[in-house]
Amino acid sequence: MADSPLINQLIDALRCLPGIGPKSAQRIAYHLLQRDNEGARRLARALNEAVDKVRHCERCRAFSEGPVCRLCLSTKRDRSLLCVVESPTDVQAVEEADYSGLYFVLMGRLSPLDGIGPDDLGIDKLAALLDEGNIKEVILATNLTVEGEATAHYVGELVHAKGIRATRIAHGVPLGGELEYIDSGTLSQAIMGRREI
Amino acid sequence: MADSPLINQLIDALRCLPGIGPKSAQRIAYHLLQRDNEGARRLARALNEAVDKVRHCERCRAFSEGPVCRLCLSTKRDRSLLCVVESPTDVQAVEEADYSGLYFVLMGRLSPLDGIGPDDLGIDKLAALLDEGNIKEVILATNLTVEGEATAHYVGELVHAKGIRATRIAHGVPLGGELEYIDSGTLSQAIMGRREI
Repeated sequence: MADSPLINQLIDALRCLPGIGPKSAQRIAYHLLQRDNEGARRLARALNEAVDKVRHCERCRAFSEGPVCRLCLSTKRDRSLLCVVESPTDVQAVEEADYSGLYFVLMGRLSPLDGIGPDDLGIDKLAALLDEGNIKEVILATNLTVEGEATAHYVGELVHAKGIRATRIAHGVPLGGELEYIDSGTLSQAIMGRREI
Repeated sequence: MADSPLINQLIDALRCLPGIGPKSAQRIAYHLLQRDNEGARRLARALNEAVDKVRHCERCRAFSEGPVCRLCLSTKRDRSLLCVVESPTDVQAVEEADYSGLYFVLMGRLSPLDGIGPDDLGIDKLAALLDEGNIKEVILATNLTVEGEATAHYVGELVHAKGIRATRIAHGVPLGGELEYIDSGTLSQAIMGRREI
């Protein structure tokens, strides 16, 4: 505990950052006060602005500053491809993998234990998007966890019901992966998913 | 790069936190936007309040919300002991080690290469404190680095010149330390500083 209530309040508030424990929070607080007052003010401003102005795109539920996000409005994207992901962070990851279609962000995954059902994932909005008729293929890029797989399965059925092609991202050995260190489940998936060369 | 300038601005601003790289900054930004808007606002408020109101104690240069810090004002502290440390974080560390005297924070260490000389360390304020006549012993608790040692040496001479006792914190093997893993410099200091049992 620092001697100043305001420093303690700052240390406490820093704890809301994921991955920052009490010791790091203290170190960060002292660093900002000692050496980077300007950075602290800029961070405070950026936090307020982002929380005030960033909302979800009405079409794809990704983060957006306007009612519809820039990817949805862009004329340069392939509008016949839709990639379904769990969270806005995943949009970033897929963007970096050179994907050029549109997205739909579920903002979660099916998880009956946590009380998260289809209604919480904006499935009605997804259905409306599919009904527009432009989309020819839906890539299911939910995480490769049990819940992500269940979600992919559920969304896949909806996509099929609309007569649209649904694909799932490949399971297998990551680039640079050494077989010796890959878990057996992944390796078994990689073998099942083997392709002609 | 995220698709929203405000999110990018937030990610950028988070980089001012020590130990937070680009990937962590992105993860934190998305976490706050997705799951902890309230935490983000609280953090912004705490940052502004701390930067606005926390200043240095006029006596000991530790962080304080008033002109003189609570430790300096306290009647429960041993006013004959003064512990000289490099930074406010060190005050915390020493406090946790059950020390009950007063402090003086140099806010740095002698470092000719970085242009940090005695004037930057508030040596005149320290001299004024010593001249008050209450202090019987000055504990030099600067870091055990080359610069910290040089600073301790410099301050020690000043303290001696005032006819006051100066002591240096002990060098040695940390609690729980295993000799096998202790560097030879520390071990040699521990042997030189050996005590009768």
